Amino acid sequence: MPFDFDAWSDDRRARVDGFLTHRFGDAWPVSFVEPLRYPLFSGGKRVRPLLAVAACEALGGDLKDVLAPAAAVELIHTYSLVHDDLPAMDDDDERRGRPTVHVQFDEGTAVLVGDALLTEAFSVLADALVDARTRVKWVSELARASGYLGMVGGQVGDITLGASIADVDTLVRVHAMKTGALIQAAVVLGAIAADAGVNELAAMATYGANVGLAFQLADDVLDADEDAGDDGPPSFVRLLGADETLRRAHACVDEAIAAVAGLPSPDALVALARFTVSRTV
Amino acid sequence: MPFDFDAWSDDRRARVDGFLTHRFGDAWPVSFVEPLRYPLFSGGKRVRPLLAVAACEALGGDLKDVLAPAAAVELIHTYSLVHDDLPAMDDDDERRGRPTVHVQFDEGTAVLVGDALLTEAFSVLADALVDARTRVKWVSELARASGYLGMVGGQVGDITLGASIADVDTLVRVHAMKTGALIQAAVVLGAIAADAGVNELAAMATYGANVGLAFQLADDVLDADEDAGDDGPPSFVRLLGADETLRRAHACVDEAIAAVAGLPSPDALVALARFTVSRTV
Repeated sequence: MPFDFDAWSDDRRARVDGFLTHRFGDAWPVSFVEPLRYPLFSGGKRVRPLLAVAACEALGGDLKDVLAPAAAVELIHTYSLVHDDLPAMDDDDERRGRPTVHVQFDEGTAVLVGDALLTEAFSVLADALVDARTRVKWVSELARASGYLGMVGGQVGDITLGASIADVDTLVRVHAMKTGALIQAAVVLGAIAADAGVNELAAMATYGANVGLAFQLADDVLDADEDAGDDGPPSFVRLLGADETLRRAHACVDEAIAAVAGLPSPDALVALARFTVSRTV
Repeated sequence: MPFDFDAWSDDRRARVDGFLTHRFGDAWPVSFVEPLRYPLFSGGKRVRPLLAVAACEALGGDLKDVLAPAAAVELIHTYSLVHDDLPAMDDDDERRGRPTVHVQFDEGTAVLVGDALLTEAFSVLADALVDARTRVKWVSELARASGYLGMVGGQVGDITLGASIADVDTLVRVHAMKTGALIQAAVVLGAIAADAGVNELAAMATYGANVGLAFQLADDVLDADEDAGDDGPPSFVRLLGADETLRRAHACVDEAIAAVAGLPSPDALVALARFTVSRTV
């Protein structure tokens, strides 16, 4: 029987959402509950949680053991969107068809919501019902991937180097930090939940790095129309052309799949890798 | 020989600064190193790290085991100042006689610096050279104290309830979250570094809650002149008068000292409790 990706992702997404639903209900002042939950339940695809779950299941791990890291990577992703949308950053008024947090509430609230979501990610990991060594590995990996050496540093690179990026290597580096590090952390944390060994973690790291890059390459192809011309932001399509960008995206997907093909149950990881590029074609 | 608080705090502050000095040197882009270090080395008194060290030493713990949590609470404190100073929050241009981060650099950088400092606090804890159970307790306590149930929630309470606070209990609650929770976490993390038992942790929690409140009461007395009149922000001096506020501050210090007097080496904790109020008289 072929792997039913839609059924799998619907089921696992519901499980992760069930876990997230219990967050922030006890906030005080009570008026803070709504802005905290607003960006977390806004129709996100939950790609990072699904990657964490798929990595855990690929190694025969239990779904219940991976819900905390799956939620944590989504909390980090969500906080980063709230802060990136701020007027001082990308200044976006709308996301997923709804007003962004600073528009719906106010700017100060958006800063604090982001801070609270970020902090809660580590709370969720530290308080999970698994052994202390697993939890501390999660915290270490997620903090490195999302801090100045990872996601935050990549955002700084994107802002400060910005339009001046003229070579593919620098663009790869910025995206590896800005979006790749958290995607890679999602699968690594999921693998840690299944008590992965060194070789399995290495396979996951290769898979995560390639899926992260494929995701960005595919995104640039999707965005190519609106960013056309020499005055758009630096993108792989501008540096490489659409055909070569798409070819590289497919090559990354192939490499990601090859890295995990030998694992006990790789079906969901394989489907998720294909999904990152199939959005574009 | 009487306890020499100045010599003790100079020495321990230098040790904490030595630990912090090694942070962020490897940031990329390289231009991000300066804004990351700028608010961290700006003449802060390091009260929270000193509280963590004093709590550890009160229980006979080793200085080397408490440097990570001492640094972590200072990283959290520093990020909160950077974000609180933002135009969308308190809009402060100057701190400790220097331009604030968003003035010295720009607003987007200040948001990202805060995010990076916050995240680094958990990285420092997770990667400390002590057993996993200790590290995970640190992460759990610090995340709770600094997130929506603690410092961030208190800042929201301060902003949203703001001038409408007319009773002492609500003001105590806001300050217990906004500043008290992190001060309490500093001593609790220090005690955890010394492998504290339940009774010792309870003593530290009592000490921390009282020192935190004393700190705020004393601060309100210090600020009373500039905030005089009915149109100032809510403060203990406005609700209670200066004399009663100072009396309560001293009572909190006495209660804090009583809670830890029976510990093996409480001298530094006692001196730090007195220091919080002696600033004002």
